[in-house]
Amino acid sequence: MEIHIITDGKQPVGELTKRILMIHEEADYIHIREKKKSASEIMEIVSILISNGVSKSKLVINDRLDVALVNQLPNIHLPGHSFSVGKVRELEPSLRIGRSVHSLSEALESEKDGADYLLFGHVFETNSKANLTPRGIKQLAEICQSVQIPVIAIGGIVPNTISKLPGVNVSGIAVMSYVIASEDPHHALLEIKDSLSKGGFDEKTF
Amino acid sequence: MEIHIITDGKQPVGELTKRILMIHEEADYIHIREKKKSASEIMEIVSILISNGVSKSKLVINDRLDVALVNQLPNIHLPGHSFSVGKVRELEPSLRIGRSVHSLSEALESEKDGADYLLFGHVFETNSKANLTPRGIKQLAEICQSVQIPVIAIGGIVPNTISKLPGVNVSGIAVMSYVIASEDPHHALLEIKDSLSKGGFDEKTF
Repeated sequence: MEIHIITDGKQPVGELTKRILMIHEEADYIHIREKKKSASEIMEIVSILISNGVSKSKLVINDRLDVALVNQLPNIHLPGHSFSVGKVRELEPSLRIGRSVHSLSEALESEKDGADYLLFGHVFETNSKANLTPRGIKQLAEICQSVQIPVIAIGGIVPNTISKLPGVNVSGIAVMSYVIASEDPHHALLEIKDSLSKGGFDEKTF
Repeated sequence: MEIHIITDGKQPVGELTKRILMIHEEADYIHIREKKKSASEIMEIVSILISNGVSKSKLVINDRLDVALVNQLPNIHLPGHSFSVGKVRELEPSLRIGRSVHSLSEALESEKDGADYLLFGHVFETNSKANLTPRGIKQLAEICQSVQIPVIAIGGIVPNTISKLPGVNVSGIAVMSYVIASEDPHHALLEIKDSLSKGGFDEKTF
């Protein structure tokens, strides 16, 4: 089971990088998702993380393909308001390209477009999507059965909800506020990993 | 004298592209400077403009290097919150790279970093920088004399202020709201060109 940590866009560069440095060794991927930050701020985040030992292979840049290319980072994640998978693949075939999807049809289309993995959500209730009905475990399971590429679940993933995941053929989970906005991000991530372990999930499945 | 038209970030995709299509033939460069628009919206703007006959060589993408690369556009403009000239040059040596500067020291540094041209301002009073003192024609002239690369003046460039430019060795002017937010963008641009002509400026000096 892969663990993706997603930044929440709410913290200044110094605080955010401090928090990421607390947890990077325990995470498989760290998504830099900072919609309101400038290119130079995201460049600074990447620079601080790499110079402090974070593996380039763990960093996933959300939307800002240019930041990924300038820093020769191997992973890009495309939200719905970003580039199409095809355009990015054409420019840089070797990139690992993820895509956010919110339905089975979007999932099938993104797989066809050549995405390397999908991020589907939000699965459970979450404060960051407080006014929207969660899409639920049933649709998650349906998508996992319908595509060949890995599906990562996002939205309301906390120790309590992880207990609902066994039986769903999900390849990973993505966690935002529970870890990155926690008073103790490292402890929060260990709680997540403990719940995964209790659920019978391996550390990493692909 | 080059004429750069800069978008003002205030118009939806449809209205903005309609306005650009009214004036593109009269302009040397059109800067797509849409800080609040998503990558997919900027991609849509570029797509509409190109499919309606706007020359790729006239389009300058502000900040979003990835949009320039994906569309194989030849020009990028870097505001202060964007990438360094050096990083962009390293990734894509053939790009024409512009840089916004606000002082002589920034101008000299950007020239040293390898910028192809500079955008200096704001030169005159302008509503878009209402609370800031304009940097004035004297500093503009000083910069034009101090660097070898072209300097484009921005900020409060309207028919009245253009009359103050003769004698200053400026390579071009950049106009935002006077043209793009005008009720009649084409007429506004013709007024600008008429004032340049009266000032003794050639259509294009480099």
